[in-house]
Amino acid sequence: MESVAIVGVGLIGGSFALALRAAGFQGEILGVSSAATIERARALGAVDRACTLEEAARRADLLFLAQPVGVIRDSLAAIAPHLRPHTLVTDAGSTKAEIVAAAQRHPAMQFLGGHPLAGKEVRGVEAAEANLFHGRTWVLTPVTEDFLHRPAVVEFCVWLERIGAQIVTLDAEAHDRALAFSSHLPQLAAVALASSCGASGLADRISAARLFGPALQEAARLARSPFSIWRDILATNRGPVHHALECYIMKLQQLKEELEQGENSGLDREFQAAALFAASIRPSGQLNEERDSSRRSVYLGDEFSRK
Amino acid sequence: MESVAIVGVGLIGGSFALALRAAGFQGEILGVSSAATIERARALGAVDRACTLEEAARRADLLFLAQPVGVIRDSLAAIAPHLRPHTLVTDAGSTKAEIVAAAQRHPAMQFLGGHPLAGKEVRGVEAAEANLFHGRTWVLTPVTEDFLHRPAVVEFCVWLERIGAQIVTLDAEAHDRALAFSSHLPQLAAVALASSCGASGLADRISAARLFGPALQEAARLARSPFSIWRDILATNRGPVHHALECYIMKLQQLKEELEQGENSGLDREFQAAALFAASIRPSGQLNEERDSSRRSVYLGDEFSRK
Repeated sequence: MESVAIVGVGLIGGSFALALRAAGFQGEILGVSSAATIERARALGAVDRACTLEEAARRADLLFLAQPVGVIRDSLAAIAPHLRPHTLVTDAGSTKAEIVAAAQRHPAMQFLGGHPLAGKEVRGVEAAEANLFHGRTWVLTPVTEDFLHRPAVVEFCVWLERIGAQIVTLDAEAHDRALAFSSHLPQLAAVALASSCGASGLADRISAARLFGPALQEAARLARSPFSIWRDILATNRGPVHHALECYIMKLQQLKEELEQGENSGLDREFQAAALFAASIRPSGQLNEERDSSRRSVYLGDEFSRK
Repeated sequence: MESVAIVGVGLIGGSFALALRAAGFQGEILGVSSAATIERARALGAVDRACTLEEAARRADLLFLAQPVGVIRDSLAAIAPHLRPHTLVTDAGSTKAEIVAAAQRHPAMQFLGGHPLAGKEVRGVEAAEANLFHGRTWVLTPVTEDFLHRPAVVEFCVWLERIGAQIVTLDAEAHDRALAFSSHLPQLAAVALASSCGASGLADRISAARLFGPALQEAARLARSPFSIWRDILATNRGPVHHALECYIMKLQQLKEELEQGENSGLDREFQAAALFAASIRPSGQLNEERDSSRRSVYLGDEFSRK
């Protein structure tokens, strides 16, 4: 891997470029973005020079598509005619099934779906960090398990490990179903919470007198994430998100009824079930320490045998 | 104010004691708690010595009830026969209407409802901090505006300002209605979220492969809060919490339908409404800076004229 092209040099694309450099990557790093973005990315040492999407497709050994989900689908179609056979195309899109399906329309394309579970509230290459992926899960969604043994994929995985990412392989649908609960539902729950408070007739009092604790502040932080990011995510994961929302609404209905009836044993059970799940996803502080000490990737090949 | 009794020497009670000391309080600080707790609190310099609830009622100029809501009601009944006329009794309970009503059953008692909006995930006097209330809202719920001019109340408010708290006065029902949306609903939303993930059939995958972002982690953090704390809060604020849950469920239903119908303009509107409210409760970092520079309390007397 001598030439890497970052398509979409924002927080994720820029961080991946900085991480490669910090991990000792000596090849060239091309950037496909607006002229202004490339200028900033060059100043930060993230990319060497700008190039067009077509040039990136012709020249790079690895194409990293770090764009919104809808744009990634367009990029796949645009690069397909220009790729060399050994080129590996991968992405960082938040949903995987539709992207993987779009890539499969180009049988000659060597495509590996990816999703680094890392991010920040701020966007843009200015916020990029070489250690953004350190200790974080990086999901890969190969269409067959064999795919992971291809030389270009093996080399890419070595770089992912060098930048400290924890590789998890899943099929695309399993990824989307899990993320519907663990990422898309929490976002919608936070938006609904902030929006309910805003519509409660108590919004002015709550904000003027600062009548809130950290829980509402955290929901508010999430609710500042713009719909422009979420539109594609929700549109490309409609079924699983719909299912997660239904389960969540049912759970809330149940809590409401138990509250109405003063049914403390039922409420207690829900708090306990919630605490049990909560304990299984301990805070990232502990996680990172633990992960750093082992630095081993997790391959969940079981998904393939279950299909 | 020469003698203060902390009834329930945990995180809040212990922090209040440490804050008073740090702000220059020279009088005695008595502690009503288990022998083991008082020992730890003495070692931390939070209290001078243990005393019984009855002795506290007879001796202290200020009684600070920092107990769970249900226990505060019991304490009010227990202290009532022993109080001197000038003694001020106040509390730190998370709901106010029922506590204020319970106190009013003792007409000779000089009671001022209070709720410091500060806390941590950890409990117990070991976690107490002298600056816990610095820059944080401290709600007071006097039954009449006149009450605020009583000498004992004026002196208490001076100490609250010295420890850096931002006083907000509200009537008890207004407090409970606002907190139903800004504190109790976020807690139930987090519990339902963690519990839904736990019941999704995807819990093992989500936790083993660490398929989650910060939103779910924050919900999980909240969901570790035990029902023993929330039972009394929910039981003493049933109407407002029920209303908040209904509004929230309706909002989620609406999001679900808009998602089903690909109604992006509706979803966009919800995200915008949420972001607008979110912007009105900016993160505490900014808040604290701003507040520290002014160090002035807010008195929202308007509540009284609206009654």
